[in-house]
Amino acid sequence: MISSLPRLYSALCDLISVLVSRAENEIDVIVSGYTHLQRAQPVRWSHFLLSHGWALRDDATRLEEQSNRLSCCPLGSGALAGCALPIDRNRLANSLGFKDITQNSMFAVSSRDHIVEFLNWSSLCGIHLSRLAEDLIIYSSREFGIVRFSDQFSTGSSLMPQKRNPDGLELVRGAGGLLLGDAFAFSCTLKGLPSTYNKDLQSDKEILFRSYDRLLDCLKVTTGTMLTMKVDPEKALKSLEPEMLATDLAYVLVRQGVPFRRAHHIVGAVLRRASTLGVSLRDLPYQEYTDICPQFGTEEELRGTFSWVKSVEQYTSLGGTSRVAVDDQIKKLRTWLTKDN
Amino acid sequence: MISSLPRLYSALCDLISVLVSRAENEIDVIVSGYTHLQRAQPVRWSHFLLSHGWALRDDATRLEEQSNRLSCCPLGSGALAGCALPIDRNRLANSLGFKDITQNSMFAVSSRDHIVEFLNWSSLCGIHLSRLAEDLIIYSSREFGIVRFSDQFSTGSSLMPQKRNPDGLELVRGAGGLLLGDAFAFSCTLKGLPSTYNKDLQSDKEILFRSYDRLLDCLKVTTGTMLTMKVDPEKALKSLEPEMLATDLAYVLVRQGVPFRRAHHIVGAVLRRASTLGVSLRDLPYQEYTDICPQFGTEEELRGTFSWVKSVEQYTSLGGTSRVAVDDQIKKLRTWLTKDN
Amino acid sequence: MISSLPRLYSALCDLISVLVSRAENEIDVIVSGYTHLQRAQPVRWSHFLLSHGWALRDDATRLEEQSNRLSCCPLGSGALAGCALPIDRNRLANSLGFKDITQNSMFAVSSRDHIVEFLNWSSLCGIHLSRLAEDLIIYSSREFGIVRFSDQFSTGSSLMPQKRNPDGLELVRGAGGLLLGDAFAFSCTLKGLPSTYNKDLQSDKEILFRSYDRLLDCLKVTTGTMLTMKVDPEKALKSLEPEMLATDLAYVLVRQGVPFRRAHHIVGAVLRRASTLGVSLRDLPYQEYTDICPQFGTEEELRGTFSWVKSVEQYTSLGGTSRVAVDDQIKKLRTWLTKDN
Amino acid sequence: MISSLPRLYSALCDLISVLVSRAENEIDVIVSGYTHLQRAQPVRWSHFLLSHGWALRDDATRLEEQSNRLSCCPLGSGALAGCALPIDRNRLANSLGFKDITQNSMFAVSSRDHIVEFLNWSSLCGIHLSRLAEDLIIYSSREFGIVRFSDQFSTGSSLMPQKRNPDGLELVRGAGGLLLGDAFAFSCTLKGLPSTYNKDLQSDKEILFRSYDRLLDCLKVTTGTMLTMKVDPEKALKSLEPEMLATDLAYVLVRQGVPFRRAHHIVGAVLRRASTLGVSLRDLPYQEYTDICPQFGTEEELRGTFSWVKSVEQYTSLGGTSRVAVDDQIKKLRTWLTKDN
Repeated sequence: MISSLPRLYSALCDLISVLVSRAENEIDVIVSGYTHLQRAQPVRWSHFLLSHGWALRDDATRLEEQSNRLSCCPLGSGALAGCALPIDRNRLANSLGFKDITQNSMFAVSSRDHIVEFLNWSSLCGIHLSRLAEDLIIYSSREFGIVRFSDQFSTGSSLMPQKRNPDGLELVRGAGGLLLGDAFAFSCTLKGLPSTYNKDLQSDKEILFRSYDRLLDCLKVTTGTMLTMKVDPEKALKSLEPEMLATDLAYVLVRQGVPFRRAHHIVGAVLRRASTLGVSLRDLPYQEYTDICPQFGTEEELRGTFSWVKSVEQYTSLGGTSRVAVDDQIKKLRTWLTKDN
Repeated sequence: MISSLPRLYSALCDLISVLVSRAENEIDVIVSGYTHLQRAQPVRWSHFLLSHGWALRDDATRLEEQSNRLSCCPLGSGALAGCALPIDRNRLANSLGFKDITQNSMFAVSSRDHIVEFLNWSSLCGIHLSRLAEDLIIYSSREFGIVRFSDQFSTGSSLMPQKRNPDGLELVRGAGGLLLGDAFAFSCTLKGLPSTYNKDLQSDKEILFRSYDRLLDCLKVTTGTMLTMKVDPEKALKSLEPEMLATDLAYVLVRQGVPFRRAHHIVGAVLRRASTLGVSLRDLPYQEYTDICPQFGTEEELRGTFSWVKSVEQYTSLGGTSRVAVDDQIKKLRTWLTKDN
Repeated sequence: MISSLPRLYSALCDLISVLVSRAENEIDVIVSGYTHLQRAQPVRWSHFLLSHGWALRDDATRLEEQSNRLSCCPLGSGALAGCALPIDRNRLANSLGFKDITQNSMFAVSSRDHIVEFLNWSSLCGIHLSRLAEDLIIYSSREFGIVRFSDQFSTGSSLMPQKRNPDGLELVRGAGGLLLGDAFAFSCTLKGLPSTYNKDLQSDKEILFRSYDRLLDCLKVTTGTMLTMKVDPEKALKSLEPEMLATDLAYVLVRQGVPFRRAHHIVGAVLRRASTLGVSLRDLPYQEYTDICPQFGTEEELRGTFSWVKSVEQYTSLGGTSRVAVDDQIKKLRTWLTKDN
Repeated sequence: MISSLPRLYSALCDLISVLVSRAENEIDVIVSGYTHLQRAQPVRWSHFLLSHGWALRDDATRLEEQSNRLSCCPLGSGALAGCALPIDRNRLANSLGFKDITQNSMFAVSSRDHIVEFLNWSSLCGIHLSRLAEDLIIYSSREFGIVRFSDQFSTGSSLMPQKRNPDGLELVRGAGGLLLGDAFAFSCTLKGLPSTYNKDLQSDKEILFRSYDRLLDCLKVTTGTMLTMKVDPEKALKSLEPEMLATDLAYVLVRQGVPFRRAHHIVGAVLRRASTLGVSLRDLPYQEYTDICPQFGTEEELRGTFSWVKSVEQYTSLGGTSRVAVDDQIKKLRTWLTKDN
């Protein structure tokens, strides 16, 4: 086990690394960010990719943390009372590569906490992968069409060559449920057991090995999918509509000193006016804007608002979707990746 | 939440503290250690108590670890794209008492990882409490009779005053399942959700508050039970039988230079002989021992083996059940408790 | 409880009823059926609606079945040994509206099987509702745009009036996880408990009432959503593309006596030819078809294949998507609904 | 699968059959019934055995019920739209041994309900086996000592031959958790999936086969254990104490016309008196009884109360622990077993 965790850790880093590289290369792609699966605000595609990267980075951090607790050698606990021969448990542990020893022989014989911790950890990591999978499965539908999977990581149909079934990611999404089930199976087995060894504990290995292998496979499949997937910048652009910039219009007013509450009201009036005239916000005449509120700036300034690039470039504060904020994230993750591997 | 974790942490420390105090006071009580619920080896009662203390200590450590990750301020993430106004997120987070900020606005809006982590953590802590509860429920049966709960923490029956139903600990044991169920419920809700905010996430509070309250109650009930419970040293002694010392006999030979494999064989022969003669190991004549193997030492030495105190005193290596090893555990936990509170 | 199940049953029937009515009214709407969230074959919208209706019909059937087992009166079991007074348990049960009595007093005191059964049942029903929710959440995205929720059952944004967040269905989808969690929680509480009454069992009510209320709410919200939702027949049609008819082309040949395996090959060649010429299957000249295989029938027959109505009308066998097969389903469900309520 | 269920069903019947046979042979053994693991009331050992038999009988009934729903043939559903060739699905289903057909092709392709139902069923059956296992593991401890497992179904220790670890039943108890985990793993995988086929569904077989095999093994191990286990009637008797008959004393009064509430009071007074005198209820002089209440009958009648046989023989109402009520249960289960196999 101890030697197996680094393999998982490095599979996590591989996936993060692919996400960061794509984020670097595809920083100019702008796409709709969705909430409730409804178009909400334009974001850089890279920002979306990195949002998954950060979740996985936390997984890596958590894995590291538990590694120490996991590295407690139980040798010298005997059946339950300890060891009756004069051995140096610390030295023994050390020579076997453990960082510490268990502090009570009955605890050592009872505890499968390191396995519970690992299974809980892997179930959270599985949830992260299932979210990425769900996003991409939806984005790869003909309707969204934002991404296209490679032949290696999708399954076609001889009669329907346009069909690209995202089998790999569907298995990853499904694995989210299976990893959870295994974590809870084992915890449920432990619940209400008396202290020390009971044969019920024997299932620890069956479940641990199964979960470990499953998660490692999922990481590899996801990495392969992300590495070979194509994003379609034009389809991405098509996911954007002027109405997504209503908030940006409010910000125009706010930056001119209008309190946010009033700005919100004013933009509401603009929206109703556009709706009455049957035009989009972008095509609403400048005159209409200034009739409602003179603080929308010059026509040029106002028109400038209807730029996707301008929109995303507003979000410069840390963790935002502007180029500088995204670049900052990339740099931070790169540093973390380098330091750690 | 942030202000609530210290309350949990200190409830954990209270329970550990009670366990350590009892361990200190009851170090002379010797009782059977059980594996498979079968009598296995004599141990100090304190050693048993501390075995639960160490599990809870690890819970406290884990709670501390996650507190940092939990202390990431998401403010400034907006709907999902970030904040379009020039705010200093680090300063904002700082002034609100957070240790760090979230690094990506879409991640911040999507993630409920801190809640998953807390729920998984509390489900493991719940398993620990359910194990302690199961042990004590069994030990409080008339058949075992090792412990007796106080009136406050058990329920009598007017018609059966000898009955002391361990209601409190049964609820604690049952809570092990409920905490697990809540952790599973929320993880299952997250599985396969697309990124950013979806209304499904709303259940985080219902589950979090319920689990938090339940665990805090369980800790208090367990602490109260442990504080007021009586252990019966004579009943404890009655759980011991000479046959539990067969391993000790083997150690006698090992310490005289007999290889363990052969010692094991020899003691097997002794057992068969005692069984043939229909006597216990303790009552088997010295001559019979030496006939089988001359290395059992003098009669006095051999007889000395049949002492419970001598037996537990063999386990002097770290984490063992001898007085010195138990004292060492007490000291370590005391130090940890002091440093931490 | 006994009086509460009919309320659930009738909430289920209400939802099925709405699905059947819509299926009746919207039988002319043709839409893409999806597998792997990829466009697969044209189906009648009604067929999709009914697929959910049948799952819920099975839920209703299962609920009925367990009602009998649930209706076993435990009265007269005493603490565990039975009743020492000469009572007629059957008459007692009868007069209280139970259908039967429990057959063993220790079993009666131990068993919470009826609650486990109900919770497992409700978790499966919750999964069915979560599937319907997921389908409709995706279909209501701007990209799919097949359905539009009413104001009552969606949440708008004052600044983004085009946004219609499907909050109701998202809560229903999330409830799928919560119902599962509650079922698991209670089963986990029971696992490994000794016979008869233990206080752990006390949580049965907390979980039962919570799950019951949640499921009833979910059924109502789903019914309201389905009752007020609008389907967009034109957007539905836009989800169809000629390439989805490749299988239909193969069937043309099969009906002319060509073995399926060969037909499949031939259509593959047609697809490649169309791809080479850069045209859709529909626009591929008739000559090209007959060059590849003379058995594609007359040009008129071939052109007739590219009709969505013709396509769905092929599936006349029971349970298929043709009008007659859908009508048959509607009639069956209507009969079932009438008989049952 | 269809052919596999009868094997499970008959394994269930085998176990019930062993329980019924033992109940028949050991009807004279009287033992304490426990609530909260505290001695509560004397019961016939057979009554305890049958309480498990009834739970398993319900499992068998449930398995039968779902078999019908499981026997719906999906053939003719195609990819999702149905079958375009004129086949008679009913005849097809019939000739393959199915009882019915699925009624909607999209439902047929989506649904794994039969698998969910089976897994939920098996998890409840697993809970029943875990309860029996827990009871017997506790009863086989040296402290309880009521049962003794055969060599085949327990594991000894060469050095501690008196130790009989109930490994088999511990694995059965642990399997309770694993079966639950598998059931929830699969349900969690389904939750929130869109309609029709998604590759996530592929895990159905892995989990189904694993659960099926595990449950079958558990049934066999439990049957073997029950078949070869020895009960110790004397140890059983030792689990009884006069104080358990306090309720019986109250019944004596009730049968003499004293209202239960008052009878309860009177016996309370008797208990206090016995406690003051430091004697057990049985040894409290007759005079003391009649001083407190003259309605305790003659001395002979009163003394008669302190008979375990008399005590259990009071519970003659259906489902009680008297010989006639236990015989009735045996007859009913025998009839059910015969009819069914």
